[in-house]
Amino acid sequence: MAGDGSDQRALQYEQTLMYGRYTQELGVYAKEEAARLRESGPRRSVSDRSRTLDLLEYDKGRCAKCRICTVRCQKFLISRVGEDWIFLILLGLVMALVSWAVDFCIAICLQAQKWMYGGLDSNVFLQYLAWVTYPVVLITFSAGFTQILAPQAVGSGIPEMKTILRGVVLKEYLTFKTFVAKVIGLTCALGSGMPLGKEGPFVHIASLCAALLSKFMSLFGGIYENESRNIEMLAAACAVGVGCCFAAPIGGVLFSIEVTSTFFAVRNYWRGFFAATFSAFIFRVLAVWNRDEETITALFKTRFRLDFPFDLQELPAFAVIGIASGFGGALFVYLNRLIVQFIRKQKTINRFLMKKRLLYPALVTLIVSTLTFPPGFGQFMAGRLTQKESLVTLLDNRTWAKQGIAEEFDYIGNSQAWQHPQLNVFITLVIFIVMKFWMSALATTIPVPSGAFMPVFVIGAAFGRLVGESMAAWFPDGIHSDGTVYSIVPGGYAVVGAAALSGAVTHTVSTAVIVFELTGQISHILPVMIAVILANAVAQSLQPSLYDSIIRIKKLPYLPELGWGHHEKYNIRVEDIMVRDVRYITLNCCYRDLQNVLMTGHLKTLALVESAESMILLGSIERAQLQSLLAQQLGRPRRLEYIRERSVAEKKRLSVVSDPGSDIDSQRISQEVRFQISTEESTFSPVRPVSPKPLKPALKRPSVVERPTEIPASPNDNSGIALKNLFCASPDTEGLEDDGDVEDDMTIREIAEWEEMQLDEQVNFNNCKIDPAPFQLVERTSLHKTHTIFSLLGLDHAYVTSIGRLIGVVSLKELRKAIEGSVTVKGVKVRPPLASFRDSGTSSSENEATELHKLWDRHNMTLPRDHTPSESDEKSQ
Amino acid sequence: MAGDGSDQRALQYEQTLMYGRYTQELGVYAKEEAARLRESGPRRSVSDRSRTLDLLEYDKGRCAKCRICTVRCQKFLISRVGEDWIFLILLGLVMALVSWAVDFCIAICLQAQKWMYGGLDSNVFLQYLAWVTYPVVLITFSAGFTQILAPQAVGSGIPEMKTILRGVVLKEYLTFKTFVAKVIGLTCALGSGMPLGKEGPFVHIASLCAALLSKFMSLFGGIYENESRNIEMLAAACAVGVGCCFAAPIGGVLFSIEVTSTFFAVRNYWRGFFAATFSAFIFRVLAVWNRDEETITALFKTRFRLDFPFDLQELPAFAVIGIASGFGGALFVYLNRLIVQFIRKQKTINRFLMKKRLLYPALVTLIVSTLTFPPGFGQFMAGRLTQKESLVTLLDNRTWAKQGIAEEFDYIGNSQAWQHPQLNVFITLVIFIVMKFWMSALATTIPVPSGAFMPVFVIGAAFGRLVGESMAAWFPDGIHSDGTVYSIVPGGYAVVGAAALSGAVTHTVSTAVIVFELTGQISHILPVMIAVILANAVAQSLQPSLYDSIIRIKKLPYLPELGWGHHEKYNIRVEDIMVRDVRYITLNCCYRDLQNVLMTGHLKTLALVESAESMILLGSIERAQLQSLLAQQLGRPRRLEYIRERSVAEKKRLSVVSDPGSDIDSQRISQEVRFQISTEESTFSPVRPVSPKPLKPALKRPSVVERPTEIPASPNDNSGIALKNLFCASPDTEGLEDDGDVEDDMTIREIAEWEEMQLDEQVNFNNCKIDPAPFQLVERTSLHKTHTIFSLLGLDHAYVTSIGRLIGVVSLKELRKAIEGSVTVKGVKVRPPLASFRDSGTSSSENEATELHKLWDRHNMTLPRDHTPSESDEKSQ
Repeated sequence: MAGDGSDQRALQYEQTLMYGRYTQELGVYAKEEAARLRESGPRRSVSDRSRTLDLLEYDKGRCAKCRICTVRCQKFLISRVGEDWIFLILLGLVMALVSWAVDFCIAICLQAQKWMYGGLDSNVFLQYLAWVTYPVVLITFSAGFTQILAPQAVGSGIPEMKTILRGVVLKEYLTFKTFVAKVIGLTCALGSGMPLGKEGPFVHIASLCAALLSKFMSLFGGIYENESRNIEMLAAACAVGVGCCFAAPIGGVLFSIEVTSTFFAVRNYWRGFFAATFSAFIFRVLAVWNRDEETITALFKTRFRLDFPFDLQELPAFAVIGIASGFGGALFVYLNRLIVQFIRKQKTINRFLMKKRLLYPALVTLIVSTLTFPPGFGQFMAGRLTQKESLVTLLDNRTWAKQGIAEEFDYIGNSQAWQHPQLNVFITLVIFIVMKFWMSALATTIPVPSGAFMPVFVIGAAFGRLVGESMAAWFPDGIHSDGTVYSIVPGGYAVVGAAALSGAVTHTVSTAVIVFELTGQISHILPVMIAVILANAVAQSLQPSLYDSIIRIKKLPYLPELGWGHHEKYNIRVEDIMVRDVRYITLNCCYRDLQNVLMTGHLKTLALVESAESMILLGSIERAQLQSLLAQQLGRPRRLEYIRERSVAEKKRLSVVSDPGSDIDSQRISQEVRFQISTEESTFSPVRPVSPKPLKPALKRPSVVERPTEIPASPNDNSGIALKNLFCASPDTEGLEDDGDVEDDMTIREIAEWEEMQLDEQVNFNNCKIDPAPFQLVERTSLHKTHTIFSLLGLDHAYVTSIGRLIGVVSLKELRKAIEGSVTVKGVKVRPPLASFRDSGTSSSENEATELHKLWDRHNMTLPRDHTPSESDEKSQ
Repeated sequence: MAGDGSDQRALQYEQTLMYGRYTQELGVYAKEEAARLRESGPRRSVSDRSRTLDLLEYDKGRCAKCRICTVRCQKFLISRVGEDWIFLILLGLVMALVSWAVDFCIAICLQAQKWMYGGLDSNVFLQYLAWVTYPVVLITFSAGFTQILAPQAVGSGIPEMKTILRGVVLKEYLTFKTFVAKVIGLTCALGSGMPLGKEGPFVHIASLCAALLSKFMSLFGGIYENESRNIEMLAAACAVGVGCCFAAPIGGVLFSIEVTSTFFAVRNYWRGFFAATFSAFIFRVLAVWNRDEETITALFKTRFRLDFPFDLQELPAFAVIGIASGFGGALFVYLNRLIVQFIRKQKTINRFLMKKRLLYPALVTLIVSTLTFPPGFGQFMAGRLTQKESLVTLLDNRTWAKQGIAEEFDYIGNSQAWQHPQLNVFITLVIFIVMKFWMSALATTIPVPSGAFMPVFVIGAAFGRLVGESMAAWFPDGIHSDGTVYSIVPGGYAVVGAAALSGAVTHTVSTAVIVFELTGQISHILPVMIAVILANAVAQSLQPSLYDSIIRIKKLPYLPELGWGHHEKYNIRVEDIMVRDVRYITLNCCYRDLQNVLMTGHLKTLALVESAESMILLGSIERAQLQSLLAQQLGRPRRLEYIRERSVAEKKRLSVVSDPGSDIDSQRISQEVRFQISTEESTFSPVRPVSPKPLKPALKRPSVVERPTEIPASPNDNSGIALKNLFCASPDTEGLEDDGDVEDDMTIREIAEWEEMQLDEQVNFNNCKIDPAPFQLVERTSLHKTHTIFSLLGLDHAYVTSIGRLIGVVSLKELRKAIEGSVTVKGVKVRPPLASFRDSGTSSSENEATELHKLWDRHNMTLPRDHTPSESDEKSQ
């Protein structure tokens, strides 16, 4: 047994090199995590801060009263800084400034393009070059800049925010780098004039802003370190994002709730309103100060007549807009996903594009801007108008087409763009809608920070306008029968269309409110509401929302919603979907077990049970905590301490007796390092056949020789030792560089042995954060209830216990699989096999009670079984 | 021991009479509950229904094809009926009709009063009599009618809905009787012209409507029996209530969310929007069909100018309105509570009023209507205007006072009411505000179905108007400096004031949206938002909302919100507030234990544990279930069966042997009734000193004689027997009436003995609904988390377990006490003593880990304790 120990060790050393890379990484990671935890632990407390204040203040040394007053003021200010409303005001202010600055830059960019295009009107080719090159350069820059600085800034950011607000930590999504990349990337992308939107990115930017502000303010107050508070603030930030983008505080709050939340805490409501209102206010005040506006008004103000906004008989037309928008919205989402999937699947294209990452944006921009070139095809689709200009003209309260003839109306300003000498205004609108539709779907796949809300909004407005103009042509004197002539207002139809289509794409109802706030008129409330609801009903039954679609494409860890008809969810139970093979650690495990568990599983937290026999769940421990425990146990400081102890012991031994017997020494050391096994086998007998080796390895003997049962216990123990060897080899390589203070004279083999010994110690959980209340479910909990609890509490996983015993674990993954399985296949195929037992109506109560009655039967043997199931199946359903 | 058995029993019989009333009630109640449960169990299933359909359809007997077609159509319709949108459309339709009808009746009532008042203009005294008598009669009728039919209909109903939506079952609040009482009572109350509102009652009426509709539709489809679905529908109904009351779908949804929910499931959002929009649409369409309106417009349409709604420099005035409204709102809530408490406390008044219940409403109405009598004091406060008329005039877009002189403006129509020859319009407004303020606060305490939203709204509008008129007088040419003169619009101020004051009273932000929808203009969005937010900030820091105030007055089981600064909640744990003395039943308990538990505790559900030693929580059982179990065990059918068995046995005995020994007989019977103790002591020995008694009581001996330890075991066992005696005496009294089929020849004493025997049997939990997954908390869960979980999941109580063992229970009561204690006293006095240990920052982690480490120490004796607390206190906060 002891003879082949050295061979085994040689083998292990080879394996060591093989596993090197992974384990080294793991070791480094564990240590980094431990260091991070250690650093973040002792944060500066309030008393510290006040002391430094005092010190600062003593330096000044003016009159005492003044000094006291200053300190008090400072203290007061600092205590105030922690309050929510200060944070929200700051957030609103910053976001309003950002929004205004971005808008300003975009306007300059677009003006520059127009100026270039206008200046070169002598040569069409030069004009085309200017028209095309400018956006291509901007988009390419935006894509490149984002790619280099922070690839997380790509896209709208709403799907990511939805995931983050659910409690999932997406790394790097809320950093300063991402903020910079997003703001600059967005400005360039929108400045190019491509059909892209500002809303989605602004939700992300506001969240970034809130996260950074929170970090910054945590320098002053301690409350900002609370995680649940940060989540609340992020929710408010989403509202601010929409609010300051459209100057729509109410719509912003509602839209952000609909888009990001599953369950909304009404106590956060005022936060969103407060911040969004303040932000929208500042945003519009900046426009007034900049002399853009006379006073605070809506962004796209309409001037429809108030006394008779629409006739009752026009409502069917509005309903038609709603239903058509529903189909259109679903189509848009489908098209968008199709494009992404097509590009991904086509391997040759994909490989080529992966190499030249900036080629795809440039190509798409080239196509889109070529098609909108005003002297070219752009003349048929009002190509010379920017997105904002088209929207303003579409919402105009004048009728373009009287009796179907476009020429009768004298166009002024931008409205002229819709006029074409050869074409009807209807055809222009149709071309505009069709072209913009696929262009927008294509443009939103470009990897730049961009949203899809505004393009869709404009398309919807155009569609509404089309219907409105048709109605106006059909009923030139209006529909109203008695008395006064109220002509039809096509602008109202445009408003309805815009709300309906954007509502259909995002699956929200609050676009209605956004529309009212954008136009500053609420007179069309009923048509808008009817159209939006119909559009939602149609779109929701056909496709997921754009954001959910992106979530699925990006495979973000998100929990899907339960479908409308979710009644079969009551029959599936947690026990059908849970993972029964739970990774756990026991209270009295040794470091080796810890290491094994860390090596094999990848869950973020691990269950702590009393013992492997009882399996009673005591709590859960984070993976990082365990890693730091392990790193501490095997770390260099501990080893150096061991070396010091050993040398002291050696000196003592040399000074007192020159007895070569290692009996006492090994015994003492084994006590010093608190060796678990040594307490049982302290009567160390040198009678056993010990291999003749130098002194030091003899210290290790107890662990190598006296545990013959442990080595062959598990087949992967070998690799375990090898892994661990290199896991601990990293401090060794460090040791070669900076072994200045203590003489680290251990060889690699010695270290391996020492670590072997360390691993056999029992884990000390004392300075380890244990969550004593991990979420528990019972195996009978229905899928419906589980889903509710998971989405309510933002859980990542929950342990399933039966009478206190850990019997399984359910994570988001299993839940998602179960829901999507039964949602799509309607409970035919993916249905868990056990669920079918419970379907047969009245018998379910028996099933439910079985387990309990089994237990009960154990207690009492002779019992009557007069079963009347009719009474007990009421609640079990 | 056996000698004084008869004395004891005599004593018990006396006690029986004493306890008679209560226990009989309890017994009857238990039986009723059991019967109810039994009846509700076998609901008609779908197959049943289709069979009856088939039968019905066979009776017709026309051609076969037609028959099949009809059946198919019916089946299809029935399957569709179950869909949500059908339900919502029906709900919206019904509520729109109700709202319109109520409005119509109110208008007729008010017109009648005006007509009477106008017709009697020759005699002021008669005029006064007519003016006063009419409302007094209406209010008295309303109060009396409501009192007789359904006292639950009194008040606004929003507090009750808030409680019901939290999951608390308030009996009789959702019945047809209440519906009728509420609708008729409300119509009469509002028809009287008192300052009362329609909104709150309409929320209740809509919920009633939803509940009734749900019940009605459950005749067709099975989904309506699902409780969580019903809650979702009630939430939608609240939105419908507000929506159809003000024709404000968006505001309705938001207001109902703010007022009734703590956590809102976004998946219910569309339901509310859909139903409220449909309802508002129908409500307004009815007005168009009735020729009241030309087309669908807002209820209180304003016509402010669109191009320049307000100047930036007017914003401070709007902010002032907001802040003042905040104070005003808090004052209103305080005044309202003060009046209620004053009337309650004044015992003489109270006693008098309790006798003559209709006196208080009549008195209040008399006072209010006397003061508004137009030729009297009413002339100074526009007393002749109804609530609606005043609101319309207040929102007028013309300026009343130019340069402070009222006479300059030519009043037309209703606006004349604000003009008084001697008085300035400002003074009229001030008088109006002050008088209406206390009148409204007083009127809302009348026990009729009524809300406070609309009166407050009108007062707010008047206050806004006052500020607006002052501003107009101060800046006759407007504030705007450059170029055009934009005069100030006092109507805009009225809108802002209305939103701010109603927002302050109800603690909602969505009054802003309601205001936009009511006026049909959104141009003042920023001033309104600013004022509403400021008003909310002020009011929320001073007083609870009106609805929360009523909840506290009525002592409804509701969980208060955590305050704004709820950071100390993280330090209080469940173990500090939980009740440690939990009522539980064990798996192997006998019916006597069950009875004892039922007698002493009053919790709705009881914990079921494995055994009193292990205390491992297995589930929870509803009280009603246990009562029905007990009733079954002691019920008459069982006893009759016993008598039958006994007589059969007796016959057999008589026929076979004439042996007088009761050995075999008693043994057999004890086996037949599965006697728990008899299995152990089946070797029945007649050697013991048995008192010489007739045969039948001898059957009972085992339970009386052989359990000498049980009688003195608990001091209340005596009363327990007595109670139980009468608990089971109720079937006996029944037995005297209808003992036709089986000869119930048992005497009361015999019955008592038989029941005694029955009680010793072990409980059979087989046909008992056990909830296998009651909600569990760990003792370390923080108060903050507990609050969140309770309000998220709508819990009533949760068990506290430690490693699977039941150690306590937390119910709403404890939680409320803990929250209110620490909210009001700010953690100084009511603070639980244990909590203070954890305050000292870094040491909290030690505390948290103690329990675990204790456990751990049990496992491992010799362990190092190198404690570094700095690392582990991050998450524990």
